[in-house]
Amino acid sequence: MALAYDPLFITSEISAMDVAAASPPPMMLTQDELKRIAAYKAVEFVESGMVLGLGTGSTAKHAVDRIGELLRQGKLENIVGIPTSKKTQEQALSVGIPLSDLDAHPVIDLSIDGADEVDPYLNLVKGRGGSLLREKMIEGASKKFVVIVDESKMVKHIGGSKLALPVEIVPFCWRFTAEKLRELMEGYGCEANLRLGERGKPFVTDNGNYIVDMHLEKDMGDLRAVSDAILRIAGVVEHGMFLDMASTVIVAGEFGVKIKNKQSF
Amino acid sequence: MALAYDPLFITSEISAMDVAAASPPPMMLTQDELKRIAAYKAVEFVESGMVLGLGTGSTAKHAVDRIGELLRQGKLENIVGIPTSKKTQEQALSVGIPLSDLDAHPVIDLSIDGADEVDPYLNLVKGRGGSLLREKMIEGASKKFVVIVDESKMVKHIGGSKLALPVEIVPFCWRFTAEKLRELMEGYGCEANLRLGERGKPFVTDNGNYIVDMHLEKDMGDLRAVSDAILRIAGVVEHGMFLDMASTVIVAGEFGVKIKNKQSF
Repeated sequence: MALAYDPLFITSEISAMDVAAASPPPMMLTQDELKRIAAYKAVEFVESGMVLGLGTGSTAKHAVDRIGELLRQGKLENIVGIPTSKKTQEQALSVGIPLSDLDAHPVIDLSIDGADEVDPYLNLVKGRGGSLLREKMIEGASKKFVVIVDESKMVKHIGGSKLALPVEIVPFCWRFTAEKLRELMEGYGCEANLRLGERGKPFVTDNGNYIVDMHLEKDMGDLRAVSDAILRIAGVVEHGMFLDMASTVIVAGEFGVKIKNKQSF
Repeated sequence: MALAYDPLFITSEISAMDVAAASPPPMMLTQDELKRIAAYKAVEFVESGMVLGLGTGSTAKHAVDRIGELLRQGKLENIVGIPTSKKTQEQALSVGIPLSDLDAHPVIDLSIDGADEVDPYLNLVKGRGGSLLREKMIEGASKKFVVIVDESKMVKHIGGSKLALPVEIVPFCWRFTAEKLRELMEGYGCEANLRLGERGKPFVTDNGNYIVDMHLEKDMGDLRAVSDAILRIAGVVEHGMFLDMASTVIVAGEFGVKIKNKQSF
């Protein structure tokens, strides 16, 4: 186990074998196995009696399953889960996690969720799964927010992986709002596309809204300023940049697990 | 007719009798008559061929009626109306105004709408009628935005009239979001109350959202900063401060009509 120190983060490296003794040798791990390794490592932070934010997506799913397993085994007790989507709510109920909501629990001890991109400052892009608003509300209300990713999600700057920065918008005159977004981000080589769901119809979020996926080519620079500018567009509900929210990022890669802690936490 | 000049605005005063020759003498005017006088004055800005943003509320209603009347009389032609609410859409159709939307007409020649408060810099509070989001989208897309009010709406600073600053929020965990808003505005003596509609159920906007009415006691100071802080709360969709959007405010009072033009327009 190697420990590295840099001015922003405390980073520790742990062999993948430490947390996934039953997995095949490191070189053989699939992306889904890496996601599971990161998820299981995150669940080590969970203690009995905690109120937990439960993330959404293919990585967070492993954490929810693991929490259910530990509850059934009696290794965890008295957990309350706050799901970040209807999908996670169903999954959590199916594995036996008691659920509540933010109104009843406005302070959450720990949230665990995946991310689509993570930059060196632990800023995130989330929401390609479509749950960015509820995730932001719940993870923003958490004392500790642990992000779990496979190493393919690590980027130099968010929005630059040619994947999407999702923005949730009201359906009313969505073309107009999408065009405002495209104009705002034009300097970063932006295309703004409505996300489609089944049978070519617009994808609809749990809140009844649409999502515009902004495909960017260039580094956005001052992320706080871009965030405010996006939020100022009438018609925008929320965007997928999670700035300064993650306290820990667990990265599972072919050669081990890396834990990055934000030093201010 | 008296003309006054101040560094920010060109202000002209016109006798109420100029625009409402058939009204009773000025001292006898009701609030609704004052609203009608302001609305009729605003409709003088309308020209044939214009795309018009049609406001919502008891004052804007008079403008919509008047535009319909002028179309029927053949004094206006080739008008396209963009309604700011479902209610205005119904009213405009009933008086014969052809309608379209922002997607088809992303640039609007002129919008006419009421306001709940107007400060000396022509910043507004809107949305006590519940249509703030569509109003902000449409009026923000307008080359000229004429606001029509009776003199009771003029305030020294917005949010300070002990009436409400409305904020549109997603229904999901609304108590949590309302509490975040209250905490943010605590320093201004804020109470944040969910707006109720029929039978004590939450009032629902045209976009399927709720409204929190923020009752403030003190001047908010830097309105841009407060605006950004409100928009940064996940769960907030839009708020009722319309900053630097009005190009002209027409104020009808007991003793005449005052027109305030923003000098930069």
